[in-house]
Amino acid sequence: MSSPFTVNGTVKTFGGSLLKLSHESTALGCKMALNVFLPATSASKIPVLFHLAGLTCTGDNGAEKGFFNHWAAKYGIAMVYPDTSPRGSNHPGEHDSWDFGSAAGFYIDATAEPWSSNYKMETYVTEELPTLLYQAYPALDSSRVSLTGHSMGGHGALSLFLKHPDLYKSASAFAPIANPINCPWGQKAFSGYLKSKEEWVKHDSTELLKSYKGDPLDIFITVGTADQFLLDGQLLVDNFVAAAKEVGREGEVVVKKCEGYDHSYYYVSSFSQDHVEHAAKHLGVL
Amino acid sequence: MSSPFTVNGTVKTFGGSLLKLSHESTALGCKMALNVFLPATSASKIPVLFHLAGLTCTGDNGAEKGFFNHWAAKYGIAMVYPDTSPRGSNHPGEHDSWDFGSAAGFYIDATAEPWSSNYKMETYVTEELPTLLYQAYPALDSSRVSLTGHSMGGHGALSLFLKHPDLYKSASAFAPIANPINCPWGQKAFSGYLKSKEEWVKHDSTELLKSYKGDPLDIFITVGTADQFLLDGQLLVDNFVAAAKEVGREGEVVVKKCEGYDHSYYYVSSFSQDHVEHAAKHLGVL
Repeated sequence: MSSPFTVNGTVKTFGGSLLKLSHESTALGCKMALNVFLPATSASKIPVLFHLAGLTCTGDNGAEKGFFNHWAAKYGIAMVYPDTSPRGSNHPGEHDSWDFGSAAGFYIDATAEPWSSNYKMETYVTEELPTLLYQAYPALDSSRVSLTGHSMGGHGALSLFLKHPDLYKSASAFAPIANPINCPWGQKAFSGYLKSKEEWVKHDSTELLKSYKGDPLDIFITVGTADQFLLDGQLLVDNFVAAAKEVGREGEVVVKKCEGYDHSYYYVSSFSQDHVEHAAKHLGVL
Repeated sequence: MSSPFTVNGTVKTFGGSLLKLSHESTALGCKMALNVFLPATSASKIPVLFHLAGLTCTGDNGAEKGFFNHWAAKYGIAMVYPDTSPRGSNHPGEHDSWDFGSAAGFYIDATAEPWSSNYKMETYVTEELPTLLYQAYPALDSSRVSLTGHSMGGHGALSLFLKHPDLYKSASAFAPIANPINCPWGQKAFSGYLKSKEEWVKHDSTELLKSYKGDPLDIFITVGTADQFLLDGQLLVDNFVAAAKEVGREGEVVVKKCEGYDHSYYYVSSFSQDHVEHAAKHLGVL
């Protein structure tokens, strides 16, 4: 079977291979690029950790600056770094602002025109991309998959995990947009991508946690106390923690406040060990 | 005493502080930017490791993508990431090619016009910058300083160490341009920056090693076997090793061939632990 992926480069790093891939996405109606780190391992099946990136990012930021690959290599985990939105659709206004449209897909399926035609990042990240990856790379263990993400990607990791608990072993987040319906970034994105305001709560991690009826959770979050976006009320991590309390799940959400850290990859790289090890524990390799 | 440095940002990373600095350089006749990583340490004096970057780079590449800060934090070492050339002199042709002029200073003092007016990267890296840093940050231990560098910066680390053994405890290099007088990059740079060909050998690490009369060395080099620039004859690491043999110093140069690695920061970050630990040993912290 021919692979749906074009391998634009294979770069050895931390003993494993960083694959620079691209493919035509049906869900998004465009060519998408991503990075996949395959660790050097004797295991026949390799657990998978998706890293969802933040606003303005691509699949390169985490792969180059997050130091996830170092820790993933240590535990024999494959890393998947998808892009953050469809590319080149050229909808009116798609490229006008850094927090909406290109590189700001928010990991949801849009319902409002014109975005509903191809801004289907939830379908892409949870269905199309993993299905293609597990077919093309059968060593990847589709039964052991976890999510992590940064900022908008933290919203993605938490919300996609709470919507699809059957697909993932665990979720963690770096400085997540934890309650988008109550912050400017989320309100701008949801009002643009979603047809009716009734749909907002279906994509809001804090609301999803309140209505979550599944097994006990073990969600891990880090956030810098000097993170300007936390101070500006864009992240609202405390609202997520309050929701956990409200539904008697306070013990199921662990937030590590990182004293003095900001929102940058200098912060992400400093704590990628914690997040990879949180996933490793749930993926059965730690 | 007021600091000569403007602190444009202080970013917490790996428990320490990454300082985004700029200052007016007398030697280079322009404003220069650099990054300095200060580890969290109880030590009263902090040893220093300079990382010299390669062609097209600034002081940001190593700081963001090298993973040096992680290991420097572990051993209580300060990292200094200088820029790779003067900026904005606008000499004719300065910005025309990626391997000469801007971001290609080659860590030498130019003698040919117009470059001789301010392309003084050897003076900047070995004299002006360290003097200013040790005044502004007295915790830095000017008596315990080592060099490392990548590609053109590997040439810088090796050649500046062999020229100024009194200034440094050790040198290591990632994929260095080890014999510039015999490769296209070095020949282009030296013929442009230096007035006469007689001067070339004074800046060539392989020639400097042949004439080196100092104490036994312990030079550590890593290079990827899939490094296209090695295969293209730009690095000539084997010439450096042959020179060591020629002068009976074969035991004093250790080259680690990194199977399948290329020239990128995916390679650098994979081996920064080895280089920081080589320095740590000579700086007395390992």
